[in-house]
Amino acid sequence: MKSDLDTLMQSKNLDAILVIGNGDHNPAMVYLTGGGHFGGAALFMKRDGNAVLLCNDMERDEAAKSGLTLIPASKYNYDELMKAANGNPTLASAIRYKRILTEQGIQGRIGIYGNVELGSSFAVFTHLQKLMPEIELVGESTSDSLFMKAMETKDAAEVERIRKMGAVTTEVVRRTAEYLTSREVRSDEVLLKEDGSPVTIGEVKSKINLWIAELGAENPEGTIFAIGRDAGVPHSAGNPVDLLRLGQTIVFDIYPCEAGGGYFYDFTRTWSLGYATPEAQKLYDEVKVVYDRLRDEFDLNAPLNNYQRRLCEWFEKNGHQTPLHTLAPVQGYVHSFSHGVGLNIHERPWSGLTASDDNILKPGVIFTSEPGLYYPDKGMGVRIEDTYWVRPDGGFEILAEYSYDFVLQMKKWKK
Amino acid sequence: MKSDLDTLMQSKNLDAILVIGNGDHNPAMVYLTGGGHFGGAALFMKRDGNAVLLCNDMERDEAAKSGLTLIPASKYNYDELMKAANGNPTLASAIRYKRILTEQGIQGRIGIYGNVELGSSFAVFTHLQKLMPEIELVGESTSDSLFMKAMETKDAAEVERIRKMGAVTTEVVRRTAEYLTSREVRSDEVLLKEDGSPVTIGEVKSKINLWIAELGAENPEGTIFAIGRDAGVPHSAGNPVDLLRLGQTIVFDIYPCEAGGGYFYDFTRTWSLGYATPEAQKLYDEVKVVYDRLRDEFDLNAPLNNYQRRLCEWFEKNGHQTPLHTLAPVQGYVHSFSHGVGLNIHERPWSGLTASDDNILKPGVIFTSEPGLYYPDKGMGVRIEDTYWVRPDGGFEILAEYSYDFVLQMKKWKK
Repeated sequence: MKSDLDTLMQSKNLDAILVIGNGDHNPAMVYLTGGGHFGGAALFMKRDGNAVLLCNDMERDEAAKSGLTLIPASKYNYDELMKAANGNPTLASAIRYKRILTEQGIQGRIGIYGNVELGSSFAVFTHLQKLMPEIELVGESTSDSLFMKAMETKDAAEVERIRKMGAVTTEVVRRTAEYLTSREVRSDEVLLKEDGSPVTIGEVKSKINLWIAELGAENPEGTIFAIGRDAGVPHSAGNPVDLLRLGQTIVFDIYPCEAGGGYFYDFTRTWSLGYATPEAQKLYDEVKVVYDRLRDEFDLNAPLNNYQRRLCEWFEKNGHQTPLHTLAPVQGYVHSFSHGVGLNIHERPWSGLTASDDNILKPGVIFTSEPGLYYPDKGMGVRIEDTYWVRPDGGFEILAEYSYDFVLQMKKWKK
Repeated sequence: MKSDLDTLMQSKNLDAILVIGNGDHNPAMVYLTGGGHFGGAALFMKRDGNAVLLCNDMERDEAAKSGLTLIPASKYNYDELMKAANGNPTLASAIRYKRILTEQGIQGRIGIYGNVELGSSFAVFTHLQKLMPEIELVGESTSDSLFMKAMETKDAAEVERIRKMGAVTTEVVRRTAEYLTSREVRSDEVLLKEDGSPVTIGEVKSKINLWIAELGAENPEGTIFAIGRDAGVPHSAGNPVDLLRLGQTIVFDIYPCEAGGGYFYDFTRTWSLGYATPEAQKLYDEVKVVYDRLRDEFDLNAPLNNYQRRLCEWFEKNGHQTPLHTLAPVQGYVHSFSHGVGLNIHERPWSGLTASDDNILKPGVIFTSEPGLYYPDKGMGVRIEDTYWVRPDGGFEILAEYSYDFVLQMKKWKK
């Protein structure tokens, strides 16, 4: 939680942190400022929690919503900085950082964070490190950085925001199911629009985006809505020109966030419209059994990599390839079963076989459970995913409940 | 244009480039791959144009749409890399980059690009530079990097995509005007919804987002829809709880992009509903005169900073503060009048007073013209903005025409 930042800075031996970039779609900046429509900002925070925010003068009102002390960019004369830098803009930026660090009395080990453009920031911070050999700029691995650690557990307000996004997400899923099952069906089992032409994946995805916007959310990472072979490739987004057909597996993985780049929700269902082939039904049932078993076995303080290992063993016993004994399998069980969800769609705790043992289920963690089985060559794939919250009392709660029906009955079609 | 990349690499003395990050919302990656739903990728391109794309195995289908030769991430064993790096993940990543660079025979000066997380990438590329002292990792300033230079001129296909986004943008503006002017008006000049409650800025912005989604576009950078004092602060996004009132300036600046993070359009109108105060009308007229004068004076090969200087002079003659003689003014004319538009909402050519003289109007450039005047203390602001294309024949064309009406007549209200 945000209240852990101080302790985490101590344990990481950081004297200060510097977060740069925009006020939106920039998790570390959103975390500390509440987010907003301001760009090219820089937030300096000492271990005692004192923070200042450098911002463009024009965007002062947006930046002021953070409640932080503002430093207007105009305080540092651009011409003068460029002169001092012999016309090198990345050096000029480094000189400005040096001035601010000095003015703010920031010394020692400084963690640096933020979503930015690689080349210019690499140049700026390489310059800065040379200009200030007395400080140490610390670049942490994203997988267990200060922010990933702090964000790993959520406070009550964050849980409610994610729960609300769960309600938005499942409402969009409900509308999608309603739309699909209300279609007329052609003799070749293709779904039809009102005008008699076939429904395409692209059209369904447009509707999904529309409903997400209608419910006040945003969809920066896109949606997976994939049928047939594409459903068998876990991260295939789906081919826009594919037609919707009965009796094929559809993997619908949807992960919108609050407008402006806030908290995400993550959710997947697999459907087969009208009927399921026996093979697809078998695949679905296998995944569902494993999904339920996992849910029953979730335990406080258990490392997620244990569940991943157990999942692989279960699936291998049933004859599927998994990452346990196959390098990057393309069929069978091919990914990790979980990740944390928050301001990042993927964050701590991690669940891969190589994830460290400190990625555990502890109160405040919000994580997905999403086992799946994929057979692209057979034209099918199945994944089931919900987002869980580990409650303060140690209980596990799905933040947005939704039916696990695999076969969706078509209203205007009978076998 | 993309076809200039080779020449630009030569002129910048780059032997190769490396672009990392996601396939969406990452302009350099979208530029070279066409974009797609793949993450954590790395594109290596030599000056001869030969390129390979490192991608996650699970996202191979999405990455394959680029048409590039793929290197699956599984080729490099994670456990082995981590062992070689003594468990340091950023060093492990650097070791992997070293292997790929060596395998691809990439040497010399390598430009690095892409939207990424600062801390981890700073660590990775600092490690890499130490591991390979024989190469030079080149971090360019974003303002005139290889990609900013290449993207500065657009080919015919890019122009058509931006033109299409212009049509989407102005259609959303048209719907917004239609919605606002159809409202009932309360005796205190507040606009009302069907249910008799007041219309808020937040509600109008929701509708805007909905229409953008309905028209198949995306709104990653948000929208400025600000009334009264907020209209007087150029980058204030608008206060969601503010009510819509007659006779106040509304600055409506809208810049959606193609879904998935593609090409942007940029457009602003200022409206006053029902009637305008004489003071606001005067302010609007001043901006409109200057907007038209600029348009008449656009000339091939003219540096944009010249127009900015002239604009400042015109406005100062009328008694307004400008950046020419005031440091970071908060009233009067307070920003630059133009920027390029493409895969970035702000890109070359730049138009600030300090922009270099090579930021010129040349065929293929797509740029905004957006003079404005701002008086937050008087509760008003005005900006007019269109996006122009410099045609191959040297003509200047607005990519989406729209009326310059300032006062929008209310259908159900008379003074």
